[in-house]
Amino acid sequence: MPYHAPTDEHLFLLNNVLGYSRISETEKFEEAGLEMVEAILTEAAKMADNVLAPLQTNGDLHPAVLENGVVRTSPGYKEGYRAISDGGWVGVTADPEHGGMGLPLTLATIVGEMMSSSCLALSLNPLMTQGQIEALEKHGSDMLKEIYLPKLISGEWTGTMNLTEASAGSDVGALRSRAVDNGDGTYRVTGQKIFISWGDHDVAENVCHLVLARLPDGVAGTKGISLFLVPKYIPDANGNPGVANSLSVVSLEHKLGLHGSPTAIMAFEESTGWLVGEPHAGMKAMFTMMNNARLGVGTEGLGVAEAAYQKALEFSLERTQGNVPVAGGSGTIADHADVRRMLITMKALSQTARAIILDTAISIDLGKANGDAAQLARAAFLTPIAKAFSTDIGSEVADLGIQVHGGMGFVEETGAAQYARDVRVTRIYEGTNGIQSMDLVARKLMDGGLAAFSVLSEISGTAAQAEADMPDLAAFLSAAENCLSATTTWMLEQEDLNQRFAGAVPYLRAFGLTLGGHYLLKAAMAEGIDGPRYAVARFHIRQLMTVVDGLCTQAREGAASLYAFDPVADAS
Amino acid sequence: MPYHAPTDEHLFLLNNVLGYSRISETEKFEEAGLEMVEAILTEAAKMADNVLAPLQTNGDLHPAVLENGVVRTSPGYKEGYRAISDGGWVGVTADPEHGGMGLPLTLATIVGEMMSSSCLALSLNPLMTQGQIEALEKHGSDMLKEIYLPKLISGEWTGTMNLTEASAGSDVGALRSRAVDNGDGTYRVTGQKIFISWGDHDVAENVCHLVLARLPDGVAGTKGISLFLVPKYIPDANGNPGVANSLSVVSLEHKLGLHGSPTAIMAFEESTGWLVGEPHAGMKAMFTMMNNARLGVGTEGLGVAEAAYQKALEFSLERTQGNVPVAGGSGTIADHADVRRMLITMKALSQTARAIILDTAISIDLGKANGDAAQLARAAFLTPIAKAFSTDIGSEVADLGIQVHGGMGFVEETGAAQYARDVRVTRIYEGTNGIQSMDLVARKLMDGGLAAFSVLSEISGTAAQAEADMPDLAAFLSAAENCLSATTTWMLEQEDLNQRFAGAVPYLRAFGLTLGGHYLLKAAMAEGIDGPRYAVARFHIRQLMTVVDGLCTQAREGAASLYAFDPVADAS
Repeated sequence: MPYHAPTDEHLFLLNNVLGYSRISETEKFEEAGLEMVEAILTEAAKMADNVLAPLQTNGDLHPAVLENGVVRTSPGYKEGYRAISDGGWVGVTADPEHGGMGLPLTLATIVGEMMSSSCLALSLNPLMTQGQIEALEKHGSDMLKEIYLPKLISGEWTGTMNLTEASAGSDVGALRSRAVDNGDGTYRVTGQKIFISWGDHDVAENVCHLVLARLPDGVAGTKGISLFLVPKYIPDANGNPGVANSLSVVSLEHKLGLHGSPTAIMAFEESTGWLVGEPHAGMKAMFTMMNNARLGVGTEGLGVAEAAYQKALEFSLERTQGNVPVAGGSGTIADHADVRRMLITMKALSQTARAIILDTAISIDLGKANGDAAQLARAAFLTPIAKAFSTDIGSEVADLGIQVHGGMGFVEETGAAQYARDVRVTRIYEGTNGIQSMDLVARKLMDGGLAAFSVLSEISGTAAQAEADMPDLAAFLSAAENCLSATTTWMLEQEDLNQRFAGAVPYLRAFGLTLGGHYLLKAAMAEGIDGPRYAVARFHIRQLMTVVDGLCTQAREGAASLYAFDPVADAS
Repeated sequence: MPYHAPTDEHLFLLNNVLGYSRISETEKFEEAGLEMVEAILTEAAKMADNVLAPLQTNGDLHPAVLENGVVRTSPGYKEGYRAISDGGWVGVTADPEHGGMGLPLTLATIVGEMMSSSCLALSLNPLMTQGQIEALEKHGSDMLKEIYLPKLISGEWTGTMNLTEASAGSDVGALRSRAVDNGDGTYRVTGQKIFISWGDHDVAENVCHLVLARLPDGVAGTKGISLFLVPKYIPDANGNPGVANSLSVVSLEHKLGLHGSPTAIMAFEESTGWLVGEPHAGMKAMFTMMNNARLGVGTEGLGVAEAAYQKALEFSLERTQGNVPVAGGSGTIADHADVRRMLITMKALSQTARAIILDTAISIDLGKANGDAAQLARAAFLTPIAKAFSTDIGSEVADLGIQVHGGMGFVEETGAAQYARDVRVTRIYEGTNGIQSMDLVARKLMDGGLAAFSVLSEISGTAAQAEADMPDLAAFLSAAENCLSATTTWMLEQEDLNQRFAGAVPYLRAFGLTLGGHYLLKAAMAEGIDGPRYAVARFHIRQLMTVVDGLCTQAREGAASLYAFDPVADAS
C-alpha cells in the first residue's frame, strides 16, 4: 500500500486553522511546541508509512485464528506491534510518572489517524490499551496503577474493554455478568462477553480485561454495574505475568472486515479481578474510557477515509480510459468530470472529519490543561459529531474509492474494498451512530444549547470574516448556520425527547457538513483565494452543503411521521 | 434466509399504480392477463422462496473454484439452476417459436427481482443468457438461431458477455481482441477478456460466449468492432456439444461479493466463432443486450434492497434493546425512532426503485407491442435512472440493513453484510452509474428534452391529482418537479457536454427521488389516506425528497468548480 502520512496537512491544520499554539502556551503542555510536534509527527509518519502500511493486507488475507484456546495473529503483526510499542506510541498522552510521553491528546489523535490509515486492524490494539490506561489513571487504586500502568504504557501488556453481552449491546445496563467479593481485595467475576477486540493475541505477554459486572447488591440497570480489571495472567509479586486466570476465548467472529483484529467471545468463570473505582460506579469509569474512545473511533473513520482517498487518487492518475481534453489535465480518468467530483468529495469529507476531530481534541487538551469547563463542554458537544460524522464519511469515502476503481474496485486484490469492509464497524461500535446522534440532541443540549450555540457562533464568525474576499461562500455558510441555529432551537423546544431523536441523525449530519464549511473556509482564507484549498472549500460549501437545508427540514419533522409507519404490519 | 417474495406488492403496483392492463390489452400480450400474471408470479415466488433463497449463503461460504481448467460451482447451485431452467424462467420473454414463454418483459423483470433477492450470485447466470437470447433473436443468422436459441431458452446452454479487457473497461472501443475470417462462415477469435460472469461452470452442458473483437479491416474505436458467438463446445451436426473450442479460463477473481458467481478471465486463442450481425456493427448488437441488461442490473439492486429490508425488518422485530413506550409498538428495537427511520427509508427507497424499473419495463413492452416510438423513448430515458438509482439504493438499503443489525451486522454469519458486498458491483458493471448519468444528460436529452419533459409532466399530473386529498405532499412533489424541470432546461442549454456531466450524478439522483414521490403518491392515493402506503409516501416526499433542491443546485453548478481542483498537485 502506498500510504503516505499527510504530515504537512496536519501541521497546516494545527497552525493555520485550529490554533494549536493555545495548547503549547499552557503550562501543562509547554514542551509540546511546534518543533516537537513536527518531530513527533515525522517519526510517527515513518512508522505508519514504512512499518504498518505494508501489513494492511496481511490481516485481511490471513486473519487471526483461534488454535487450542490461544489466538495467533496475522503475519507481521508481532513486529508491527513492537514498532508501535517501542516507539512509545501507546503512551503518547499517558502520565510520564509511569513512562508515558505526557503529550496532548491532539498529537495522539494524529498518530492514531496515521495508524488507522496504515493498518486499522492492528491499530485497534493500542487504541484499546490507551483507553484502559486512561481509566486506570483516573479510577484505579494506587496498587493497580503501580502494577499495570508501566506495563500498559510500555506496550508489554495490552488492554481490552468488556462491555457487550449477547443481550446487552446498546443497552449496557441489561448485562448479566456478576462479581462476588473475595474479601481479600479481589473479586470473582463470572460472565460471557462478546465483541471483545483483541480479546486475546500473541503480540504481547499479557492481556488485561476491563470487565463490567454486577455485584450482589448492585441494582438493576446501569447504576448497579461495577468495573473490574481481570488480567489473563495474574501478576506475581514482582509484577510479572504469573498464574493463568480462569478465563478463556470461546470463539472468534468471522467479520465483514478487520480480519486482522481478533474479535473474541470471552468467558469469565470465577475469574480473579480487582475493582476499578467505586462499587456500582462502573459506568462512570467506563465512560471515561468511552468518551475518548469515541474520538478514537472517529479517528479510525478519518484514517480509513484518508487512505482510501490516497489510493483512489493514485489509481485515477494512472488509469487511462476514454479521454477528456482538459487544460493541464492528467490524461487519465481523473480528467472525467464525475471522477473528479468523486475525488474532491472524498477530499472535502476527509478534511472535514479531520478538522472536527482535531478541534475536539484541542478542546479536550485545553480543558485539561487549564481546567476550562467551557472547553470541556465544547469538546463534549463535538464528540458525538466527531465520532458519527467521521465514521459515516469513512464508509462513504471508502465506497467512493471503490467506485473510482471501477470493476477493479470489486476485486479484493486491489485493496479498495478492504477499506470499505474494515471501516464499516466504526459506525456501530463505541455507540452506534444513531446513539451518537441521540446523545447530541439530548444530553449535549442539556445545557440549554450553550455549547451548541457557542459553536454555531464560531461558524457565523468565520462567515463574517470571509464576507469581503469570498462573499458567495460566506453567504452559503451563513445560510447553513442560520438553518442549523433554527433547528437547534426547535430541538430545545421539544420536551418529548423522542421528537428530537426522530431527526437526530439528519441533524448531526447537517452539523458535520456545516462545520466542514467553517473549517475549510478558514483554511482557504489562511491560504488565499489562489491556493488549492479554495477549490475544496468552494466545492464543499457550494455543493456538498446544498443538502443542509433539506437535512434540517428532516430534523424538524418530528416523530409522528416515523411512527405512522407500522413495521409489525409490514412484516406480516 | 427467510426471504418471502412480495407478490402482493408486485400485483398492487402493476394494477393500481402502473396501469399494467395496457399491456394485456395489446394483441401481442393478450394472453398475459391478470390471472396469468398472478399464476406466473406465484410460481416464481415459490421457486425463489423455497429453492433459491436457501442457496444464498452457499455461494458466499463456498465460492466457485477453478480446478484443472474447469469451474466447479457452489454446493446446490446445480439444483438451483435446474429449478430455474426447468421452470422455464430463462426464456420468459423469449420467442415461443424457440421454446420461450413470449411473455412481457415486465413479468420477466419481476421474476428477475425475485431471483436477485433470493440468490443474486446464481441469478446472474440466467440474466446473462437472457441478454444473449435477445441479441441472437435480433441479430443472429437463421442458422445461429436454429442451433442456439432452443438450447439457451431451455437452459441447457448458458450465455456470457465478453466485452471488457484489461485496458478497455468503460472505453470498450479500446479493445484489442481480433478476429479473422476463415472463409467458411467461421472466424478465428483471439484475445483476453476480463470480468466474464459465469465464464465457465458446471451447471449446464455448454457455455456460449458473445465476444467483441475487431476484424482486420475494422477501424479504431467502437465503429470497428464486430460481435462473435464463440461456444465452449462447438455444436456437432445434431446441434449437440461437440469438440472443445480453443478457449480457456485463465483465472477467477477473488471479489468483494458474489462469490458464488464465477468471474473469469477468458483467453480465446484462434477460437472458432460465428459473426453475429453485420461486420463492424458489433456495438449495435451489444447495445441490444446491454440496454435490457441495464434494466436487469437495476433489478439486481432492487432485489437485494428488498431482501435486505426484509431481513432487517425481521431482526428489528425480534431484537429487544432499551425500551421506548410506543402505543401499539412491538416492544423491540423497531420502536426506537432512528431504527424506524432506517426501516422506512429502506422501504421507501426499495419501492421507488421497483416502481421505476417496472414502469420502464412496461414502456418497453408497450413500445414493442404497439410499435410505439414514444413509449420506447420513454423507456430509453428511464433506463439509466432505473439502473443507477436502483443499484445505488441497493447499496444504501443493504448498508442500512447492516446498521439495523448493530454489531451483529458486522458478523458475516448474520447475512446482512453479504447483501452489501454482493450488490456493490451492480453500481459498476453494465456501465458505471457515473456513465449512466452521463447517458441521461447527453444521449437521453438529444431529443431536446422531449422524453424528459414528458415524464416530468406525468409527475406534475400526479401532484395535481393529489392536491385535494394530500395537499402538502402534492405541494412538495410539485416543488421538486419544478426544480427538476428548471435543471433539465439548464442541462439542455449547455452545449459543452462536460458542463452537463459535472452535475449528471446529482441530477439523476434528484430525478430518481422525485419519481419515487410520484409513484408512492399514486400508490397512496389508490389506497386512501388511511392506508399504510400514505405513511411511506409522506416520509419519502416530506423527508427523503428534501434534498432534491440541493441536488438540483449541485447539478447546475457546472464543471469549473470541479476542474479548479487539481488532483495531480494533490497527489504530489
